[in-house]
Amino acid sequence: MSQPQQEKTAITPRRDEDFPEWYQQVVRAADLAENSDVRGCMVIKPWGYGIWENMQRVLDGMFKATGHRNAYFPLFIPMSYLAKEAEHVEGFAKECAVVTHHRLEADGKGGLRPAPSAELTEPLVVRPTSETIIGASYAKWVQSYRDLPILINQWANVVRWEMRPRLFLRTAEFLWQEGHTAHETAEEAIAETQQMLRVYETFARDYLALPVFTGEKSESERFPGAVQTLCIEAMVQDRKAIQAGTSHFLGQNFAKASGIKFQSREGQEELAWTTSWGMSTRMIGTIIMAHADDDGLVLPPRIAPAQVVIIPVTPKPETRDAVLAAVDQLAAELRAQTAFGEKISVEVDKRDIGGGTKSWEWIKKGVPIRVEIGPRDLEKGSVAVARRDRGPREKEFLANADFVGKAGAMLDEIQAGLLARATAYRDANTVKIDTKEEFYAFFTAKNTNKPEVHGGFALAHWNGSRAAEEQIKEDLKVTIRCIPFDAPEEDGLCILTGEPSKRRVVWAKSY
Amino acid sequence: MSQPQQEKTAITPRRDEDFPEWYQQVVRAADLAENSDVRGCMVIKPWGYGIWENMQRVLDGMFKATGHRNAYFPLFIPMSYLAKEAEHVEGFAKECAVVTHHRLEADGKGGLRPAPSAELTEPLVVRPTSETIIGASYAKWVQSYRDLPILINQWANVVRWEMRPRLFLRTAEFLWQEGHTAHETAEEAIAETQQMLRVYETFARDYLALPVFTGEKSESERFPGAVQTLCIEAMVQDRKAIQAGTSHFLGQNFAKASGIKFQSREGQEELAWTTSWGMSTRMIGTIIMAHADDDGLVLPPRIAPAQVVIIPVTPKPETRDAVLAAVDQLAAELRAQTAFGEKISVEVDKRDIGGGTKSWEWIKKGVPIRVEIGPRDLEKGSVAVARRDRGPREKEFLANADFVGKAGAMLDEIQAGLLARATAYRDANTVKIDTKEEFYAFFTAKNTNKPEVHGGFALAHWNGSRAAEEQIKEDLKVTIRCIPFDAPEEDGLCILTGEPSKRRVVWAKSY
Repeated sequence: MSQPQQEKTAITPRRDEDFPEWYQQVVRAADLAENSDVRGCMVIKPWGYGIWENMQRVLDGMFKATGHRNAYFPLFIPMSYLAKEAEHVEGFAKECAVVTHHRLEADGKGGLRPAPSAELTEPLVVRPTSETIIGASYAKWVQSYRDLPILINQWANVVRWEMRPRLFLRTAEFLWQEGHTAHETAEEAIAETQQMLRVYETFARDYLALPVFTGEKSESERFPGAVQTLCIEAMVQDRKAIQAGTSHFLGQNFAKASGIKFQSREGQEELAWTTSWGMSTRMIGTIIMAHADDDGLVLPPRIAPAQVVIIPVTPKPETRDAVLAAVDQLAAELRAQTAFGEKISVEVDKRDIGGGTKSWEWIKKGVPIRVEIGPRDLEKGSVAVARRDRGPREKEFLANADFVGKAGAMLDEIQAGLLARATAYRDANTVKIDTKEEFYAFFTAKNTNKPEVHGGFALAHWNGSRAAEEQIKEDLKVTIRCIPFDAPEEDGLCILTGEPSKRRVVWAKSY
Repeated sequence: MSQPQQEKTAITPRRDEDFPEWYQQVVRAADLAENSDVRGCMVIKPWGYGIWENMQRVLDGMFKATGHRNAYFPLFIPMSYLAKEAEHVEGFAKECAVVTHHRLEADGKGGLRPAPSAELTEPLVVRPTSETIIGASYAKWVQSYRDLPILINQWANVVRWEMRPRLFLRTAEFLWQEGHTAHETAEEAIAETQQMLRVYETFARDYLALPVFTGEKSESERFPGAVQTLCIEAMVQDRKAIQAGTSHFLGQNFAKASGIKFQSREGQEELAWTTSWGMSTRMIGTIIMAHADDDGLVLPPRIAPAQVVIIPVTPKPETRDAVLAAVDQLAAELRAQTAFGEKISVEVDKRDIGGGTKSWEWIKKGVPIRVEIGPRDLEKGSVAVARRDRGPREKEFLANADFVGKAGAMLDEIQAGLLARATAYRDANTVKIDTKEEFYAFFTAKNTNKPEVHGGFALAHWNGSRAAEEQIKEDLKVTIRCIPFDAPEEDGLCILTGEPSKRRVVWAKSY
């Protein structure tokens, strides 16, 4: 009989065994979300939604600090609106939820049916994104250069029919924010596009502990209708890329389609310059794949729904009350402390189930710090502290007051540690490549049973040839993730065409 | 030529001339929302959405303080789900947006059409409310009494097709929160239903400055499928009632339809007891109709997007910089002050338009306090302060520091004043009525050109007869708004049937 090679983990399979299945199991074990009976639509459960609420709160503050306000536009888009912008219709007007009736009636067989008498004259599309419907409003609001800029964001649900849905990563309905701005000049709109990308970059790095590449998409990967698409790209633990936020300079394309015109300072009628930018619940999938381990979710403290969980250990009825009182006392003391400039969030788990089960539940949910207090700890005035960034059985015994005093710093350390670990992982798997052979080998899995195990991100020269890009996509399912902003100019030769190139771009397989 | 009888007001018509049109004009003048090209769907503009954000923030805190957590369920409901609960299908499965296709394709004439090849096997309904879809999840989550209670709230958009839409009051799409809870016993579920009604009552009174009647709906006015519907009912300035929040005890009806079963403490399989409760963007319409006046919106300070607006008056270029600097300084000082335990929110309006226009804009937007600073104020170290609860031309000149010190108290006073005014108005128009004749006269407008001018709320005896209720509804368009909780038991005779009754109920015309 063969012995297991590794200690048993809370999640089966492990990351290195089957990454996609591991992902699903982490989502399930952390109780984040589940599939509904409606194809492709997920139920976001309280723990998952709590992460989203924290993301919303932070991003919303950043949007407001940069002068944006929230508004709300209709869920439904008249079908004809989608046909207005030629590229946009190509990209978006395909897999949509189409509303054709506004009433149900009894079908005579005990069920219901769409009432034939209530067919809409023009079908409505459930918004896949709101450029067209928001553009129709802006066209009414903008008359003069004095009405510009318009700086608005919307928190909303959107629907894009998906044939192969996957929780958080690709669902028919998802939640997001979409910023939509209109400007007097191209320069202003470009500056806005860049500013919002930097907001996403800062958010990803400082809150989600995700290092990202920032840059521009190549033409073939652009948002349909955009002049320029900027993005942040993160690496997750199967070394694939995931686009974690995008910011589009739309030029005058959508302004033209929607009729957003204004009288300029010179008295001329001009088209406005617009932008749009968005980040979605997909980001929850990204942090799972970036930080979780073989015992489940690992949450960056800044967006964890609870930063500390306190678990009372009550083996004997006679000490139970004293332990519960101590737990409440500790929770109150911790909640008076701050981490990252805000009150520490604390959950107390008094459920009447075994301590071991409870502890593993919180490990799988990714809570940054777990604290246990039992009768013996009470006698000693100490607590048992476990950190999610260390081994699941590793505990530190600290005097009560000592722990309270250092909890904030500990959360800081965990947050910084996750970023450092993700950065090290990304850097270790990001390689400069200069030949076609090396490039093809890099993206070819050594073990064909595990297609996810390939090199990672390749920094390689590209001369701008769309044909080269398409060849590589076809051969390897590898695409240009971005043409990075911060890369130094450097002479080189395109790995595919051999033609001169000035800059390396980021190539990767992606979600 | 006839002279105008009254001073010209910012809103035309006045409330007493044409209340419904006055309402539309207030919404427009305050820049709260507008109709979109999609029938019945509104665009909520930043000022309107800012009110909603404040409502959300407060309510969300109250929900969490009572042990609820947020989650998110699918936008789409399979058509068959709606047919599961018999009364529910009657009440809701009619005017719905029905999704029948999941793809668009070119129609060959330069436009688009729903692709016949992408017709859904089962149509989907855009949620009009989520009992059925959430019930399907709860049925999976609940196995044992240990899994109860489930205390969840959802912030979402819902759609109910409306033939005669009206901004905020009745729109096809609206935003709301819907709480959905499941419990082990009927008693617990009833306690939850009542608790949430009290949350709404407190919110309406303490934040929206709205006094409300709380009570139970009569059977005919119940939520379809509910055992008991509790509500808060406010009076607005045309003396009609508006239902401002509801809380439903659903008994085991939805649990049965969805299959929410659990193993009880005694080992028996039992059906759970569920509740649902909701408040929506309709509440914005309610506060407009309750507090606005002939000069526009009047916002309760606790939910105003800005509590104070500072307007620099810069008649001469040479004093402009000094005035702007003073304005920024004042804004900073005010933002360091608190009102209602939170930082005062301040807007500075530096737009390059006339001071009079600017001032009237903020009056129409309902900002509680307006402050003007010009060169002469600067010399004197004073500011001109105007309160929205007083006449539009009434100003108080206060020393700068004096104003900063008392701004919080002034906001308190305005908030309390609005509640007192609304309460006095409601009480003055709520009358005990004991005869059928008096009742019919009370609800008959004196001037038939203004059907809205009638008595108000009648407190009259009712013996529980559904026929009487229907007769009155048919004759007068008057319904029982609620059977109040807090009314004393009192012997009397039903005004219609003459039969003995134990309690007066609240009758009114309503939105």
